[in-house]
Amino acid sequence: MYTYELELKVRDYECDLQGIVNNSVYQNYLEHTRHEFLLENNVSFSDLHNQGIDAVVARVQISYKNSLRPKDTLVSKLYVKKEGVKYVFHQAIFRKSDDKLCIKAKVESVVTQGGKLLSGLPAFDALVDK
Amino acid sequence: MYTYELELKVRDYECDLQGIVNNSVYQNYLEHTRHEFLLENNVSFSDLHNQGIDAVVARVQISYKNSLRPKDTLVSKLYVKKEGVKYVFHQAIFRKSDDKLCIKAKVESVVTQGGKLLSGLPAFDALVDK
Amino acid sequence: MYTYELELKVRDYECDLQGIVNNSVYQNYLEHTRHEFLLENNVSFSDLHNQGIDAVVARVQISYKNSLRPKDTLVSKLYVKKEGVKYVFHQAIFRKSDDKLCIKAKVESVVTQGGKLLSGLPAFDALVDK
Amino acid sequence: MYTYELELKVRDYECDLQGIVNNSVYQNYLEHTRHEFLLENNVSFSDLHNQGIDAVVARVQISYKNSLRPKDTLVSKLYVKKEGVKYVFHQAIFRKSDDKLCIKAKVESVVTQGGKLLSGLPAFDALVDK
Repeated sequence: MYTYELELKVRDYECDLQGIVNNSVYQNYLEHTRHEFLLENNVSFSDLHNQGIDAVVARVQISYKNSLRPKDTLVSKLYVKKEGVKYVFHQAIFRKSDDKLCIKAKVESVVTQGGKLLSGLPAFDALVDK
Repeated sequence: MYTYELELKVRDYECDLQGIVNNSVYQNYLEHTRHEFLLENNVSFSDLHNQGIDAVVARVQISYKNSLRPKDTLVSKLYVKKEGVKYVFHQAIFRKSDDKLCIKAKVESVVTQGGKLLSGLPAFDALVDK
Repeated sequence: MYTYELELKVRDYECDLQGIVNNSVYQNYLEHTRHEFLLENNVSFSDLHNQGIDAVVARVQISYKNSLRPKDTLVSKLYVKKEGVKYVFHQAIFRKSDDKLCIKAKVESVVTQGGKLLSGLPAFDALVDK
Repeated sequence: MYTYELELKVRDYECDLQGIVNNSVYQNYLEHTRHEFLLENNVSFSDLHNQGIDAVVARVQISYKNSLRPKDTLVSKLYVKKEGVKYVFHQAIFRKSDDKLCIKAKVESVVTQGGKLLSGLPAFDALVDK
């Protein structure tokens, strides 16, 4: 059901004193995956910002299942649904070596222009999973 | 109802190209608040780790309400409840200048020893809000 | 000889798998110290950016002497000299508990406007140590 | 003269409010390049740490030449020399699209075991450029 996936390598500095990837870093992975997904579809988060259009995260839910560690490669997957004005990214990150689920996440974002909420963006609507 | 609060200053490097604090950084603020809360109660996250006891985040929910920006001071608040084996941290971050809610979060954590789930930790139980 | 100092607390997420503050984090501390120093003198890095004026780091030298660890408080100090078009920040970070030197740094920065190098900025010149 | 290179994509969260990759992030790139270089030669920074052997950065010099921006791909290169007890990494990062030099760096590191300075490590000596 996931429509996009990105492979990344854990970087040692992303690990904390417990020797595992720090919780907050998964949000970095999730964001980078969304932005690369957009880029692959010719939509640039930074270009949109320069045009005054900002995609903003409204809500995040992350379930942590298994920790990533130094030397791990991760596979980050997503698909998008639209619910009202929200673009809901369903995301998951797997450890590549054994396909184990590391985290599952739901990221709800909205689009704003000059601070005002938009009902959507055609460029984003085209990426929604139906 | 919050039993602990910590004041922090936004650091410019925490802001991303949108000129606002990046979403993932709030998880840094939330973690630092929990660890300072523990320290104030003579419980050290790093000392526990060195004894083989790890507090691990199992689930995070964050609602983003208002963005923090350069020069902002934030007030980060929490209280803890216990639900089964989970310690549930109810956290919120406010902008100090106008007391506006920036994020609201629920962070569920468990305690493990040598990878095994513990039913709890006396040092943590003493901090739970009744 | 240092003309400004800022006290910060180590945050556990700033520590890496070696259990010490990661090398790159010291650059965060150094930047935050410079920006807080500017702010205390009514110069805002982010406001300057919004006016098209950017202070940009051209060169960094850091000598790492002693590691910071969880629970440490650090004292970050600086003074500024001007050398040609460069503002040279002489910075050092000390561990508060025993006053031990953790790092010593020299950060050379220049000011640009619309990508063009400026010979200086009156607001910065006023802060230079003579 | 560089003996190893690694290609990385800029991640939007690595950019700060100036819209360019933050200065401190280059140290992340540099570290990750060194550690991947070691891994490719069957030396693991994290495994060494677990055996009580730590490679520690003693000194860093970075010259910033051109900024990396969202959507950029970077090519990070290195070679290593030994000077006394120090392993000196000569590193540079180039923008892939036009081969422009972004930063040039010299990173001096030493190896310690239980806090004591070692004169070197055979596994590292084998990687030194002669």
